[in-house]
Amino acid sequence: MNVILLSGGSGKRLWPLSNDIRSKQFIKLFKDEGNMYESMLERMYKNIKKVNNQSTITIATSHTQVSIINNQLGKEIGISIEPCRRDTFPAIVLATAYLHDVKKVPLEESVVVCPVDPYVEEDYFIALEKLYKLSKNSKYNLSLLGINPTYPSEKYGYIIPENKKEVSKVVKFKEKPNTQKAKEYISEGALWNGGIFAYKLKYVLEIAHKLIDFKDYNDLYNKYETLEKISFDYAVVEKEEKIQVMKFEVKWKDLGTWNTLTEAMNENILGKGIQNEKCENTHIINELDVPVLCMGLKNVVVSASSEGILVSDKKQSSYIKPFVEKINQPIMFSEKSWGSYKVINVQENSLTILVTLNSGNKMKYHSHNYRDEVWTIISGNGKAIIDGNEQNVKPGDVITMKAGSKHTIIANDELKVIEVQIGKEISVSDKQEFDK
Amino acid sequence: MNVILLSGGSGKRLWPLSNDIRSKQFIKLFKDEGNMYESMLERMYKNIKKVNNQSTITIATSHTQVSIINNQLGKEIGISIEPCRRDTFPAIVLATAYLHDVKKVPLEESVVVCPVDPYVEEDYFIALEKLYKLSKNSKYNLSLLGINPTYPSEKYGYIIPENKKEVSKVVKFKEKPNTQKAKEYISEGALWNGGIFAYKLKYVLEIAHKLIDFKDYNDLYNKYETLEKISFDYAVVEKEEKIQVMKFEVKWKDLGTWNTLTEAMNENILGKGIQNEKCENTHIINELDVPVLCMGLKNVVVSASSEGILVSDKKQSSYIKPFVEKINQPIMFSEKSWGSYKVINVQENSLTILVTLNSGNKMKYHSHNYRDEVWTIISGNGKAIIDGNEQNVKPGDVITMKAGSKHTIIANDELKVIEVQIGKEISVSDKQEFDK
Repeated sequence: MNVILLSGGSGKRLWPLSNDIRSKQFIKLFKDEGNMYESMLERMYKNIKKVNNQSTITIATSHTQVSIINNQLGKEIGISIEPCRRDTFPAIVLATAYLHDVKKVPLEESVVVCPVDPYVEEDYFIALEKLYKLSKNSKYNLSLLGINPTYPSEKYGYIIPENKKEVSKVVKFKEKPNTQKAKEYISEGALWNGGIFAYKLKYVLEIAHKLIDFKDYNDLYNKYETLEKISFDYAVVEKEEKIQVMKFEVKWKDLGTWNTLTEAMNENILGKGIQNEKCENTHIINELDVPVLCMGLKNVVVSASSEGILVSDKKQSSYIKPFVEKINQPIMFSEKSWGSYKVINVQENSLTILVTLNSGNKMKYHSHNYRDEVWTIISGNGKAIIDGNEQNVKPGDVITMKAGSKHTIIANDELKVIEVQIGKEISVSDKQEFDK
Repeated sequence: MNVILLSGGSGKRLWPLSNDIRSKQFIKLFKDEGNMYESMLERMYKNIKKVNNQSTITIATSHTQVSIINNQLGKEIGISIEPCRRDTFPAIVLATAYLHDVKKVPLEESVVVCPVDPYVEEDYFIALEKLYKLSKNSKYNLSLLGINPTYPSEKYGYIIPENKKEVSKVVKFKEKPNTQKAKEYISEGALWNGGIFAYKLKYVLEIAHKLIDFKDYNDLYNKYETLEKISFDYAVVEKEEKIQVMKFEVKWKDLGTWNTLTEAMNENILGKGIQNEKCENTHIINELDVPVLCMGLKNVVVSASSEGILVSDKKQSSYIKPFVEKINQPIMFSEKSWGSYKVINVQENSLTILVTLNSGNKMKYHSHNYRDEVWTIISGNGKAIIDGNEQNVKPGDVITMKAGSKHTIIANDELKVIEVQIGKEISVSDKQEFDK
C-alpha cells in the first residue's frame, strides 16, 4: 500500500517536551517490544510496515522536521517537504506528485492519507490496508475511514453515512458540534472524521492540474510559494459526490494533551524520577539530568525538559496552550541532521552549548559575523577545519574562532563539544553557510 | 546584648534548595522592606541589630558554612568555627570562649544562645533582649525562653515551670512526648523548649574548665578534635538546679519543612513561574533559568534547583527526608568565599562549570593531578596566573591548563568563566592548594 503521513506543526499542548522544532510525534514516550523508547512517528511507521512490508510511506512535512525524521527513520524514508505553509490541498497534492514522480507509483494506484499522531493499535493498520484496497477497487473517488464514536465529542467533525453497513456512501459532513448535537448525530449513526482517506493518485492530480498550473513534482515544489492557500476539504471533498466511508470500530486516541498521552504510556516514570507511596495516577516525564521527586500527588503530570517544567492536574493540562504561548523562551534543545545541540548556560553576552555530532557526520561549513566561538572537545575524535586549515581533534583540544572565521567539525566517532559563544547580540540568524 | 546563633547542618527536608553545603537558613526566601530577598540568617541578624544596635553576634558553625555566612553578612561578622562535630557542649563552650577571648566580652556579661532557623516576628527579638537582661541581673545560672504551645506538638521537648508567672523556676524538663502526653503537659502549664537560653560567660567557662583541659579559645580550637562528644543538656542543664524560664507568648514557627516554610513566604511564586487561575494554596520556588508552569494544583509546593525538582503535596513534604537521602546527586551549586560555581553539564569524562568570581576576589592557587581544565572568559576582566606566569584576561580569552599545572584567576570586576574539566575520574578531592 501507499501511505502519506501528514506530520503537522508544533505542539504547544505538550510543552515542555514539544516546542517550535520538536512536535509531539517525535517525543520518545512509548516502550516497544524490546523495551526501547519510541516516538509516535516511529510507532506509526513500524506498524504500517508490519501490516505490509512493501508499503511506500511518504511523510509530508516542513523543512524544520526533516532532520529529526531522518534521525528517527533513517535517510531512505520518503519525505515530501513543503517549502512553506499553503494549507492542506497544496500539501497533499505535493506529496501525491512526489509519490508519482519521485517514487514512481502509477496513477492507477491508491494512496491512504492519515495524520501521524493518533495513538492506535494494530487493528488500525489493518483497517488502513482495507481502506487502500477499497479505494483501489471501487468507483468511489474518495474513501474515508469513519471512527465509531465512543462519546459525543466536540473535537471531531462527523460523517453521516447513508446506512449502517461497514461501507456506505457518505450523505453529509458535519462540522465539530456541541455535545447535544453530537449526541443527535451519533444516534443517527454518524462517525468521527479522523482525517483518514484514500484516493487514486490520478484523481487528485487531475483536480490539481485544473486548479494549479504545474508540470510535475519539481515544478510544483519550485512554485509552491506562489500557490493559493486552500484546504483539501474546500478544493476536493465538498465538490465530490462519490464519497464512501468505511466504519472503524476500535481504539483511537488523539494524544494531543498530557492527560490523554499519559493514559497511553506504559509506565508512570520516564527519566529520573521518584514517587512516594501516596502518589496516585501520577506521571513523571523527565528529560533533565537531575531527579524529580513527587510526594502525595493525585492525577498530576510532571514534565521537565531544558525548556521548562510543567506540573499540572491531568484534566487541566488541556488548557496549557495560552500559557505556553506567553512563555518567551529560546529553543534550548534541538535535533539536527548531524546530531543535536543543547543550550546549557545563558548569559547576557554569551551562550554555552553542548554539541553532539553523530559518528561520520559534520556541521555545515559556516561563519558568524557577530560572535567569537570556543570549542573544547570533551569526547570522541574528529577533524576541525578552520579557514581552510584542517586539524585532528581529541578530548581536551581547544579551538578558538574569531567572528568571521569559517569553521566546521567532522566526527570520526560520536563527538561531544562544549561550544562557548561570546558576542553582543547572539542570534541563530547570525550564520553564513559555505560549500567548502 | 551578646548572642550566639547556632547555625546547624544540612537540611535534607528542604531539598532541592538545601543540600549538604547550603542549609535552609541560607536560602533567600523572604522579602524584606526593600523588596529584596533575604535568608533566615540575614533576617535573624538584621532583627537582632534592630532591637539592639550594639549587640555582639557570634555564629557557631562549621567550616563549610563560613563562605556563605561571609557572603550574606560580610566579613566582619564573628564566626566561631567548629573544626569538626563534637555535639552541643563543646560547640557552645568554643563560641563562649570566642566571645570572651576574641570579642573581649567580660566574664560577668551574659549571652543568649539560640538557633538561627526559627521564623519569628519582632517580639521575639525583644524577648531575647529581655532574656539577656534577666540572665545578667539574676542569681539563676540558666535562663530559658519557654514558648507558649499553640498545639500539643510531638516535635518539642517541654519545660515544666513551677508556676504560671511570666518568669518562673523550672521544675522539670520533659522529652518530646506523644500527643496525649503533650496535652497533659500543656494543661499543667508546660512550655515548648525551643533551645533558647542565656547564661553568664563565667558560668559556662567554669564548667568547661572542670571538664576540659584548655587555656583559652585558641587552645580549645586546636585540640577540638580530641574532645569528647557531649551534649549541653547532659553536661550542664541536667546537673543544674538554678534554672528559670521566661514565658514567650507569641508567634514561633519552625520552618523545617516546605509546608511550614511556604506559610511564611510573602508570595506564591519565587523565580520564573506561572500558576493558572485553578491553582489554590500552591507555591513555586524556582532557582532555574527556565519557567515552571502549574495548572490546577491544590496545596502543592514545587521547588526546582540545579539539584533536582520537588513536587509535593504540602503535608506530604514533611516526609521527604528518606527519599532525598537515597538521591545520589553530586553538589551542583555552591557559594564560595570568592563567589560561586554551578555545574552546567555532566558527562562521563568531563564536567562543565560556570564559575563566578566576585569583584576583587580570587581562587586559591591550585592544581589537579588527574584532569585538564579549559577556561573561557565570558564576562568581566581579571588576571590569570598559570605556573607563575601572569596574564590579563577579558571576554573571549581562553586558558588551557594541563593536569599538574598550578593556576588561579583574580577578578578585577565580576568575572564569569566557563570551566571545562576533562579527565577520567573527576573529583572535588583532586585538588592541591599552594600559597604562591
